[in-house]
Amino acid sequence: MIVECALYRNGEKVALDCPRDDVAAVRAAGTESGDFTWVGLYEPPSEELEKVAEVFTLHPLAVEDALSAHQRPKLEQFGDVLLLCLKTLWYVDAADAVETGEVSVFVGPDFVLSVRHGQGAELQSARHALEDQAKVLAHGPFSVLYAVVDRIVDEYNQVATGLEEDVTEVEASVFSDQRRDDTNRIYVLKRELQEMRRAVYPLREPLRRLATSSVPGMSERSAPFFRDVADNLNLVADTVEGLESLLSSAFDAHLARISVQQNEDMRKISAGAALVVVPTLIAGIYGMNFTHMPELEWAFGYPMALGLMLASALGLIVLFKRSGWL
Amino acid sequence: MIVECALYRNGEKVALDCPRDDVAAVRAAGTESGDFTWVGLYEPPSEELEKVAEVFTLHPLAVEDALSAHQRPKLEQFGDVLLLCLKTLWYVDAADAVETGEVSVFVGPDFVLSVRHGQGAELQSARHALEDQAKVLAHGPFSVLYAVVDRIVDEYNQVATGLEEDVTEVEASVFSDQRRDDTNRIYVLKRELQEMRRAVYPLREPLRRLATSSVPGMSERSAPFFRDVADNLNLVADTVEGLESLLSSAFDAHLARISVQQNEDMRKISAGAALVVVPTLIAGIYGMNFTHMPELEWAFGYPMALGLMLASALGLIVLFKRSGWL
Amino acid sequence: MIVECALYRNGEKVALDCPRDDVAAVRAAGTESGDFTWVGLYEPPSEELEKVAEVFTLHPLAVEDALSAHQRPKLEQFGDVLLLCLKTLWYVDAADAVETGEVSVFVGPDFVLSVRHGQGAELQSARHALEDQAKVLAHGPFSVLYAVVDRIVDEYNQVATGLEEDVTEVEASVFSDQRRDDTNRIYVLKRELQEMRRAVYPLREPLRRLATSSVPGMSERSAPFFRDVADNLNLVADTVEGLESLLSSAFDAHLARISVQQNEDMRKISAGAALVVVPTLIAGIYGMNFTHMPELEWAFGYPMALGLMLASALGLIVLFKRSGWL
Amino acid sequence: MIVECALYRNGEKVALDCPRDDVAAVRAAGTESGDFTWVGLYEPPSEELEKVAEVFTLHPLAVEDALSAHQRPKLEQFGDVLLLCLKTLWYVDAADAVETGEVSVFVGPDFVLSVRHGQGAELQSARHALEDQAKVLAHGPFSVLYAVVDRIVDEYNQVATGLEEDVTEVEASVFSDQRRDDTNRIYVLKRELQEMRRAVYPLREPLRRLATSSVPGMSERSAPFFRDVADNLNLVADTVEGLESLLSSAFDAHLARISVQQNEDMRKISAGAALVVVPTLIAGIYGMNFTHMPELEWAFGYPMALGLMLASALGLIVLFKRSGWL
Amino acid sequence: MIVECALYRNGEKVALDCPRDDVAAVRAAGTESGDFTWVGLYEPPSEELEKVAEVFTLHPLAVEDALSAHQRPKLEQFGDVLLLCLKTLWYVDAADAVETGEVSVFVGPDFVLSVRHGQGAELQSARHALEDQAKVLAHGPFSVLYAVVDRIVDEYNQVATGLEEDVTEVEASVFSDQRRDDTNRIYVLKRELQEMRRAVYPLREPLRRLATSSVPGMSERSAPFFRDVADNLNLVADTVEGLESLLSSAFDAHLARISVQQNEDMRKISAGAALVVVPTLIAGIYGMNFTHMPELEWAFGYPMALGLMLASALGLIVLFKRSGWL
Repeated sequence: MIVECALYRNGEKVALDCPRDDVAAVRAAGTESGDFTWVGLYEPPSEELEKVAEVFTLHPLAVEDALSAHQRPKLEQFGDVLLLCLKTLWYVDAADAVETGEVSVFVGPDFVLSVRHGQGAELQSARHALEDQAKVLAHGPFSVLYAVVDRIVDEYNQVATGLEEDVTEVEASVFSDQRRDDTNRIYVLKRELQEMRRAVYPLREPLRRLATSSVPGMSERSAPFFRDVADNLNLVADTVEGLESLLSSAFDAHLARISVQQNEDMRKISAGAALVVVPTLIAGIYGMNFTHMPELEWAFGYPMALGLMLASALGLIVLFKRSGWL
Repeated sequence: MIVECALYRNGEKVALDCPRDDVAAVRAAGTESGDFTWVGLYEPPSEELEKVAEVFTLHPLAVEDALSAHQRPKLEQFGDVLLLCLKTLWYVDAADAVETGEVSVFVGPDFVLSVRHGQGAELQSARHALEDQAKVLAHGPFSVLYAVVDRIVDEYNQVATGLEEDVTEVEASVFSDQRRDDTNRIYVLKRELQEMRRAVYPLREPLRRLATSSVPGMSERSAPFFRDVADNLNLVADTVEGLESLLSSAFDAHLARISVQQNEDMRKISAGAALVVVPTLIAGIYGMNFTHMPELEWAFGYPMALGLMLASALGLIVLFKRSGWL
Repeated sequence: MIVECALYRNGEKVALDCPRDDVAAVRAAGTESGDFTWVGLYEPPSEELEKVAEVFTLHPLAVEDALSAHQRPKLEQFGDVLLLCLKTLWYVDAADAVETGEVSVFVGPDFVLSVRHGQGAELQSARHALEDQAKVLAHGPFSVLYAVVDRIVDEYNQVATGLEEDVTEVEASVFSDQRRDDTNRIYVLKRELQEMRRAVYPLREPLRRLATSSVPGMSERSAPFFRDVADNLNLVADTVEGLESLLSSAFDAHLARISVQQNEDMRKISAGAALVVVPTLIAGIYGMNFTHMPELEWAFGYPMALGLMLASALGLIVLFKRSGWL
Repeated sequence: MIVECALYRNGEKVALDCPRDDVAAVRAAGTESGDFTWVGLYEPPSEELEKVAEVFTLHPLAVEDALSAHQRPKLEQFGDVLLLCLKTLWYVDAADAVETGEVSVFVGPDFVLSVRHGQGAELQSARHALEDQAKVLAHGPFSVLYAVVDRIVDEYNQVATGLEEDVTEVEASVFSDQRRDDTNRIYVLKRELQEMRRAVYPLREPLRRLATSSVPGMSERSAPFFRDVADNLNLVADTVEGLESLLSSAFDAHLARISVQQNEDMRKISAGAALVVVPTLIAGIYGMNFTHMPELEWAFGYPMALGLMLASALGLIVLFKRSGWL
Repeated sequence: MIVECALYRNGEKVALDCPRDDVAAVRAAGTESGDFTWVGLYEPPSEELEKVAEVFTLHPLAVEDALSAHQRPKLEQFGDVLLLCLKTLWYVDAADAVETGEVSVFVGPDFVLSVRHGQGAELQSARHALEDQAKVLAHGPFSVLYAVVDRIVDEYNQVATGLEEDVTEVEASVFSDQRRDDTNRIYVLKRELQEMRRAVYPLREPLRRLATSSVPGMSERSAPFFRDVADNLNLVADTVEGLESLLSSAFDAHLARISVQQNEDMRKISAGAALVVVPTLIAGIYGMNFTHMPELEWAFGYPMALGLMLASALGLIVLFKRSGWL
C-alpha cells in the first residue's frame, strides 16, 4: 500500500495535482535541483513494490531485501542508491512481549523510498514532525533517513524502558518472601532481550558510518544528527547489555534462594518431626508390658506421661530456637 | 563419479558430441573467449580426481584437500585457480540429527570443478536453476561458484529452522508440568549446534572476501550476489548463536526447575508424613498401660481416639494449605 | 543556576565589576590573547542554558546533550568547541548505595562552560584548588577541563574504596559460621558495580585521546596531566573489574556453603532421628503381647529396657563421631 | 646425543667419510651453493649443544632456549638464523594421559639444527620420509623445518583423536543409568586439554607467518606446504576448543543428572517409608487399650488388621504409580 | 633511603671518593661518554626522592608516580627519561599468601634511578650479578633496566610455582574421600591469582615495546634480552591463566562432589531408617490387643518375632546392596 508520496522543495512540501499512487508523475514534477520525492509503502505486495522500484531503477537484489522482511539490519550501497534495513520493535503491554517488524529505506539522489513491514514504527507522524522542521528537511533525502531512524531508535528506547520495568518486577519477585518460581519469567525476558539485541547491535555499525559521514552522497551537515541517533542507539545497547547481565544475576540469586529455602524447609520439617517422635517414644515406653513398672500404678502416672511429652516438645522448641536451627 | 561435464558460452550450455567423461575434450571445445567448462564430481576415487586435475593442471596440495573431505571451510588461491572448501549440512528428521558432508569448488579462468562428498547439497538442481538464468550464468565461472554456495547456504537455513523447532520443543518440555529429564536432549542439541557452528563460522571470512570482490579474477558484477549469500550466512550464524544462548538458558531453567520441584516434593513428603505420624502418637498414648486412664473406660473412648486422629490430620492439612506450605 | 563566572588571564582571576550573571560582559572583558572565561552552571533551566549557549554560539545538539543529563560519557567536537560529558558518582554511606549525576564541559578557544546535574562532584572547590596553581591554570581552558575531570575521577576512586569495603564485608559474611543469606546483598553490590562500570568504562577512550593530545586546540603541555588522570581512571576500572570478579566468586562460594551446610544439617537430623527411633523399636518390642516373654517378668526388666535404650543412643553417638558422620 | 648429521645437495644426501659427530667437518663438505647440513640432537648435554652451536655461530640466548625445554611455542629471528620452538605431544594409552616434550629447530642459510627433548615426535622417520621426496627436500633447509613441523602436528592430531575417544566415553558414562561419579575423570580431561591448548594455540601465529612467507630467507615455493600444516593445526585447535566446550556441557549434564537422581531417590525413599508407616499406624490403633473396641473380640479381627495393612500398602503403591510419583 | 649509588664506565664500576648519599657528585664524576650513574632508593621519604629527582631533573608527575606506590604497571616517556613502574610479588609460605610491592625505574641517557617499595625484589643482588657481566653492563642504562625487570619477573615465576603447588593441594583435597569444605581455600587462591594477574598482565605491553626496541634511546643490542624477559613473562601469564581456569574447574568439581556425597548420605540414611522402621512395624503388630492372635500363645512366638525382625533387616541389607542403592 502506498501510504504517502510527496515532492519536497527547499524543505517544503510541493502541492501537486497528480494522485498519490502515481509515483512516476510525482517524481517527474521535481524539476528543480534539490527537489526530492518521498514515497512511503506499507507491506506492499510484490508487484506494487516492483512498479515503484522501476520508477527509481532500483537493483533487483535490493528490492528483494525490502520484500522479504527477514533481514539483518544493514547498510548497503547499490550504485548511487543507499539501502538501510532496520528492525522495528514495539512493546505489547498485554503480553509483556516485544514484537518486531522491519523498515527498509532507499535513499537516492532525488528520492527516498521507505518500505515498512509489521505494526511498529508508525512513520506518518515522523513525516509530519519533519515537515515542521523546514530547515532540517532542506538537507535533502538524508534528512528523511534521519527522521525515520530517529523515530525507530526512539521506539527502541521505549521498549527498553518497558523491559527495564519487567526486570525490576522480576527482581522484586526473586527477593520477596513468597515461594514463586520465577524461572519461566526470567527465561522469557532473556528471549526478548535477545530479540532486541538482534535489532540493536547490528545497527550500530551502519549508524557509525552515517555519523562519521563515511557514506557517499551525504552532506557533512547531516552528520551531527546521525551522531545524535547513534548516541541514543549506544545508550539502548548499553541498557540491553546491562539488563541481560542483571537478569543473569537475578537468575543466580533465584537459584541461591531456592537452595536457602530448601535448607530452611528441611530444618523446619525435621524440627516438626522431632516434636512428634520424642513423645511417641515416651508413649512406647509406657506401653511396654513389664510386670514391674511402678509408674503405671501411680495415680498421676498418666498425666505425668502426658506432661513429659509436652515438656519434651517444649524443650526441643526452646533448644532449636537457641541454637539458631529455627 | 563424474556427475556432469558441460561447456557454457554466453550463459548457454553448448551441445557437444563428446562423452560426459571426456573432460579434456569438453574443455578443448571451448574455443571462444568467455567459454568455460563446468565439471561436477561426486565422491571421486583418487585416480579419477587426479585425471581431471591433470586436465586443469591443479596444484597437488589443492587436489589433496578436495580428496580428504576433512577440511575446515576455507578459500585458497593456487596461482590463478581459486579453491573454496565448504561443509554441507542436512537435517535427518528421523534422528533429529545434523549430518555433514563437504564440497570443494575449483574456479579457474575457464573452468569450474566441484567435488562433493556426502549426501547433502544435491548440486544438480542448482545447476539446472542456474542454466535457466542465462544472464547470471554469463558472468562466467564465478556465477557457478555463487550458485553452489547459495544452494549450500540455503540448506544451512533449512537445518537452522529444524534446530529452531527442536529448541522450541525442548523449551516446552522444560516448562511443562511433567517430570522429564531434558538433560540428554539439550546436550545432543548443543553438540549439533557446535557441528553447525564449525561449518558456518569459518565460511564467513571467505564469503566476506568474495562479497567485497577482494579475490583476483572475479568481476565486480558478481559481488552483489555474493553479498546476498554473505547476508544469508550471517543470518544463519546469528541464529546458531541465538540458539546456543537459548539452549544454555533453557538448561539453566531446567536445573532451576529440578530444584524447585525437589523442594515441592520434599514439602509434600513431609506433609504426608505428618498426617501419619501424629495419629501414630495418639495411638501410642492410648496404648500405654497406666492403671488410671479414664478415657480407656469410656464407652466412646475408641471412636473418640479415632476421631482425634482424623481431626489432627485434617487440622494439619488446613494448616499446611494456609501457611503456603502446600 | 550560574554558580560562578570569571575571567582568567595568565593563570590569574581578573577582578571585574560586572555581575556574575552577565556572562556576555565577562567574556567581552577578555580582550588579551590567552584570556578565557570560565562559567559554571548547576542544573540550569532550559532557558538559562540557552542564553549562555548563545553567548558562546554553541551547537544546538550539543546544548541538548548538556540539558538532558542522560548521556553516555563521550567526547565530541562541534566546530572548534569540544564537549566532554561524564558521569559523577558518589557513595551514600547511609544506604550503601552509589548515586550518579552528570557533568558536561564545553571547551572553546577562549571559554570553558561546565554544566552539572545531581549532587556529586562539587566543582567549586576544584576551581579554588586550580586558582592556587597559576602555572597550570595558565595552560588555558584545557587546564580547567583537567581540573574538573581530575576531581570527578578522584571521586570515582572514593566510591571504589567504599565498594571495596562492602565487598570485604560480604566476604566475611559468606565465610562466617552464621547462617545468613547474602544473596540479596551480593546482588545489590553487583548492580552498583554495573552502575559504576557504565560511568567509568566509556570515559576511557575520551581520556586516552586527551592523554595523547589527539584533540584539536589542545597544547602538548597539558597531555601529561590528562595522562595522569587516565592512569587513575584505569586503576578505577581495574578495581571495578576485580570487584566484579571477586563478587562472582563470593557468590559461588556462598552457593557452595549453602550446599555444604545443607549436607551437614541433613546428617545432624538423621543422627538425631536415629537416637529416637532405635529406642522406640526397643519399646515396641517390650510392648508385644506374647505370653512367653521372660524379660517381662524380671524384677529389673523395666530398668534394663531403659538402659538398653540409653545404651543404643550412646552407642550410636559414638559410632557417628567415629565414622566422621558428625 | 647427536642422532644424525648429514649433508644434502639438490635433494639428495651426500655420502661422506667423516664421523657423524664431526659437525664442523660435515658442514665444511658443503661447498656448492644450495648445500645444507641437517643435524639432529636428542636431549644434548649443555656442552654438546654449545659445541654444535659454535659451529653454526648461534646466538647464546637462542641456545639457552633450546636447552631449557620450558619454552612457549615461538618463532624468533636471530640475525639470519630462525628459531622455532614447539611442544611435542603424545598420548599414553595406559594412563589416558597426554605427555609433552619439546623440539627446537634452528634454520640457517645452509643448515638445520633440531634439538629434541622428551620421548614424543620421533624425528628420524620424518627424516627418512623427507629423503624420499627429493623434490621437496631440494627446497633447502625450510623443507626440513616443514617436515619436522608436519610430523609434530600430525602427532597433535593423533592425540586429539585419543582425547575425542575419552570424551565420548565420558559422555556415555554421564548418560548411562548407572550411578557413577564422573567428576574426577572430567576434571582430568580438562587438564589434558589445557595442556594441549598450550602447545597448539601459541603455534598458530608462527605457522601463519610461515604460511604467508613473511619470514626472511624462505622461498615462496615452500609457503603452500606450511599453509597445509597451518590448516591441520587449525583443525586441531578447533577440535580442542570443541572438546573443551563439550566437556563443559557434559559436566553440566552430569550435575543435572545428579540432581534428577537425588530427586528420584528421595521420592523412592518417601514412598518406601509410606508403605511401612501407614501399617504401623494401624498396628498402633489396634494396640490401644480401650475397654470397648469391638474389633478386638472378632474372630477374624487379627487377619482383618493384617489385611488392612496390606491393602493400605498396595493402595499407596497404586496411588504413587498413577500420580507419576514413582 | 639511598641503598646504593655508583658510576659505571665500560661495564665497570668506577671507584669514587664521594659519599654514597651525594648523588650529584657521583653524577658529576661521569665525564666520559657512555658513563652512567645508577642510584637505588628504598622507600625514600618524599624530600629525599625530590632531592634526587632534582639532580636528574625528573618531571614532577613522574616523581609523584614513584612516590605513591599505587600504580598500574606502565611504561611512560617524559622527555628523554623513561619511567617503568612494575609490581613486585613474593610468596609468604607461612600464610600461603602473595604480597605485593612496587618498583619504579627511571632510565635517562646517563643515569638509572630505581625506587623500591615493599619487601619483595631485593635488587642489591641483581646489581651484583649484573656487575659480574661487564659485557652486558656495557650496553648502558638499559642493561640495568633489564637486570631489574629480569629479577622481578624471575620472582613472578617463583610465586607462580608456589601457587601451582597450592592448586595441586586443593585438587588433592577436592578429590580425596574426606569431607572437607575447600570453598574458602579456593576463594583465597582466586584472590591471590587476581592479585598476580594485576601485576603480570599490564606489564606485557611495556615489555613488548622494549622487546621490539620501540622505545627511544634504547640500543638494538638490548632487544634480545628484553625479548627473553618478555617470553618469561608470557609464560607466567599463561600459568596464571591456566591456574585460574583449573581453579574454576576444581571449584565446579567440589560442588559436584558435595552433591554426589549428599545423595549418597541420603541413601545411607534412608537405608538405616528402613532397618529400624520395619522391625518397629513387626513389634507393633504383635503389640495389638486382638483376642485371637495364635502366635501370641506360641511357646516360641517371642523368639520368632525377634527372628522376623532380624530377618527383615538382613533382607533389606541384601536388597539394598544388590540394587546398587548402597
